[in-house]
Amino acid sequence: MTLASLREEVFAANLSLVHNGLVVETFGNASGIDRESGLVAIKPSGVDYAKLTTADLVITDLTGRVVEGSLRPSSDLATHLALYKSFPAIAGVAHTHSRHATAWAQARREIPCFGTTHADYFRGAIPVTEEMQHEEIATDYELNTGLAIARRFAHIDPLMMRAVLVAGHAPFAWGRNAIEAAYNAFLLEEIAHLAFMTIAIENSAMPISDSLRDKHFLRKHGPKAYYGQAERQ
Amino acid sequence: MTLASLREEVFAANLSLVHNGLVVETFGNASGIDRESGLVAIKPSGVDYAKLTTADLVITDLTGRVVEGSLRPSSDLATHLALYKSFPAIAGVAHTHSRHATAWAQARREIPCFGTTHADYFRGAIPVTEEMQHEEIATDYELNTGLAIARRFAHIDPLMMRAVLVAGHAPFAWGRNAIEAAYNAFLLEEIAHLAFMTIAIENSAMPISDSLRDKHFLRKHGPKAYYGQAERQ
Amino acid sequence: MTLASLREEVFAANLSLVHNGLVVETFGNASGIDRESGLVAIKPSGVDYAKLTTADLVITDLTGRVVEGSLRPSSDLATHLALYKSFPAIAGVAHTHSRHATAWAQARREIPCFGTTHADYFRGAIPVTEEMQHEEIATDYELNTGLAIARRFAHIDPLMMRAVLVAGHAPFAWGRNAIEAAYNAFLLEEIAHLAFMTIAIENSAMPISDSLRDKHFLRKHGPKAYYGQAERQ
Amino acid sequence: MTLASLREEVFAANLSLVHNGLVVETFGNASGIDRESGLVAIKPSGVDYAKLTTADLVITDLTGRVVEGSLRPSSDLATHLALYKSFPAIAGVAHTHSRHATAWAQARREIPCFGTTHADYFRGAIPVTEEMQHEEIATDYELNTGLAIARRFAHIDPLMMRAVLVAGHAPFAWGRNAIEAAYNAFLLEEIAHLAFMTIAIENSAMPISDSLRDKHFLRKHGPKAYYGQAERQ
Repeated sequence: MTLASLREEVFAANLSLVHNGLVVETFGNASGIDRESGLVAIKPSGVDYAKLTTADLVITDLTGRVVEGSLRPSSDLATHLALYKSFPAIAGVAHTHSRHATAWAQARREIPCFGTTHADYFRGAIPVTEEMQHEEIATDYELNTGLAIARRFAHIDPLMMRAVLVAGHAPFAWGRNAIEAAYNAFLLEEIAHLAFMTIAIENSAMPISDSLRDKHFLRKHGPKAYYGQAERQ
Repeated sequence: MTLASLREEVFAANLSLVHNGLVVETFGNASGIDRESGLVAIKPSGVDYAKLTTADLVITDLTGRVVEGSLRPSSDLATHLALYKSFPAIAGVAHTHSRHATAWAQARREIPCFGTTHADYFRGAIPVTEEMQHEEIATDYELNTGLAIARRFAHIDPLMMRAVLVAGHAPFAWGRNAIEAAYNAFLLEEIAHLAFMTIAIENSAMPISDSLRDKHFLRKHGPKAYYGQAERQ
Repeated sequence: MTLASLREEVFAANLSLVHNGLVVETFGNASGIDRESGLVAIKPSGVDYAKLTTADLVITDLTGRVVEGSLRPSSDLATHLALYKSFPAIAGVAHTHSRHATAWAQARREIPCFGTTHADYFRGAIPVTEEMQHEEIATDYELNTGLAIARRFAHIDPLMMRAVLVAGHAPFAWGRNAIEAAYNAFLLEEIAHLAFMTIAIENSAMPISDSLRDKHFLRKHGPKAYYGQAERQ
Repeated sequence: MTLASLREEVFAANLSLVHNGLVVETFGNASGIDRESGLVAIKPSGVDYAKLTTADLVITDLTGRVVEGSLRPSSDLATHLALYKSFPAIAGVAHTHSRHATAWAQARREIPCFGTTHADYFRGAIPVTEEMQHEEIATDYELNTGLAIARRFAHIDPLMMRAVLVAGHAPFAWGRNAIEAAYNAFLLEEIAHLAFMTIAIENSAMPISDSLRDKHFLRKHGPKAYYGQAERQ
């Protein structure tokens, strides 16, 4: 993968966050990594999406050292890097403050798998991280955010569950590239919206059965998928 | 009815789902049947609506055998076919994941007839199917979804109640052709929205009286209708 | 007032309902009356707003006899006429199924005066009619809807409170002409929306004080108004 | 600062209220003050935003005397002036009836700091004023509204908390100029929206820790800020 194509992909991923209405103010950033070179492309910090160009993206290595670019990288860079290090199978990360997913994160409640729309994309409840301690916040806050996510996924396969809610903060999503990560951020917002309405109708609503959940997840993901015109994973 | 006009009608019905904002992602499909030939036109699986053409529609017979078309039919085909077989009076089916109707389906609560807007189109509460058992999900899931709907309508006339909520999944609507089916999917979303807000205001809200419900339903439907410029049924 | 200008005004009022997003499906109609001649202009029944022309409006007298027009008048005509007969001070009526106001009507709860936005336009809680009895529904339903509103206003000045919620149905609003009626329908939806959110935040929220309510209402309405560039009433 | 540039800035601030969807009907006004001359530019009362021009703005001194302009100033002028007198550090004020912030004001509940989106802009819960007494409403109502805000901020730094909810009324926001004030009105609506959804999901949701709140507030505001491409305060 050339650095130019990584830039293009990460640029497109960042714009899709805006086009899908997931970005409030300047909150939101997507990154991608070229696993061969270990180089990461990420949105610069606090730049207006309307003015963002491919050239504005910042290239860093996995230690966070800026390799190319004159702007500061997103202040969430350290979180992205921690995810790349913890989850070797992923190559794209997206962070938004999309409204419904953020509301669940603020309520510190995982999003139960209430229906097949959810199960088509996420295999079970969307997890919430533990609250961070004062020390984790005071020093290396962004890094520790990534570590808190990794701890929450100690027993979860990040390809089976491609999103998380950071308690009191907002969601992160990921995928096998930046475009997929942004797409999962969009899907997460959608199922957060549906779940929000579901508990408003019935506060004690129950998740669907494991059978129904896996039926839907596995007809779209993995070797036995039969939805769509070609195999998806 | 020519196959060409069936295609046109089903194409228009599918687009109306999008234009009415009922489609989330690629979820949503409408089909129509020519009752004389027994041929069914349905949306292909997982195809982006923006790229859908009349020629992409798949033609099958009532057993699900593809008669025309190079794409896979919607993975929900078997549900549509089961409805056509169970409800001989209908000739169009629409399935969406429209947000409010889906939330009621996820909450597994029927939508009470809270007002005349509802009663103008649906004669009573929108029913919810029973939850499906593991065996029904594991084998012939889409067919069994259709059979679960048919069981729920054992004592309901599908022309008096043209929609259903599949528990933990989403709505299906139908009508005397594909356009009507898509239109009923739109109306269902609207009354699901109103009902959602009604119980938010007053959790113990009561349905309207049978007198008021039937007054409204029957002034728009059936031989004594007097709403609009011509008789509707 | 010429019949032509009455038609123009009523046409504009009907379109404003659509432009303000108050019309769901074909629900919604505005009428106006020329008090001198006693002639009423009203939207025809079930006609698509996108195709409505000035010429389509139906002119009737106060008994409901069609004086001009080839289309059927709105099926709600008898309700409009009952309001014109009961409230001599008004000369315009608007009926919508706007979402939030309709939800309150379905919940059969009056809309408390929770804030100054409400008090700027409506002096106190928006009243709800009593539920109609079987006999009122079975015969002359639309007329009886108007009479139920008039009964509810036995001790309320219809110029101090220019809207009502018909229980299990939807709102009616009115004013000194059709444009004002449509504008009040719009304001009602707005304050219904605010009130909806208010009780979601705090279910036991209390109305503002009578002092604050009247301060706001009277700085915009009546002889002591000082809001805006000219006196309004 | 020339009067012309004050006019431009206040005009732009007023338009941004509309463009950000914060204005319901004609509610909403922004003002700015030139601290050297003590002159204030403010929107005229009840003028349609679509027709507003720079020349329509009214210039007054801090006593409310009109220095330039042929239109009446906003009826809320006295509130703005009271804020300029009480909070010497600010030079812009914005008032809206934006929906979510107004709903919190109507519910008379402060908006807890539920997440980092909130903490990025507001250091703690958004305060609510006390209810005004009959005497305060009957005489010099708009002035007394400003004084009620100032009393609520007796122990709060108005640069650390740039917005307030007036009980039973709506929000006011402010900043170091009119543009900032309008921007803070926009941010307030956004976090009011998020908080609205948060308590709908979990009625007993808790604010984030002081550590997390200050981490986010101070990485964007003050001398140690490191978010964005340049220091912000």
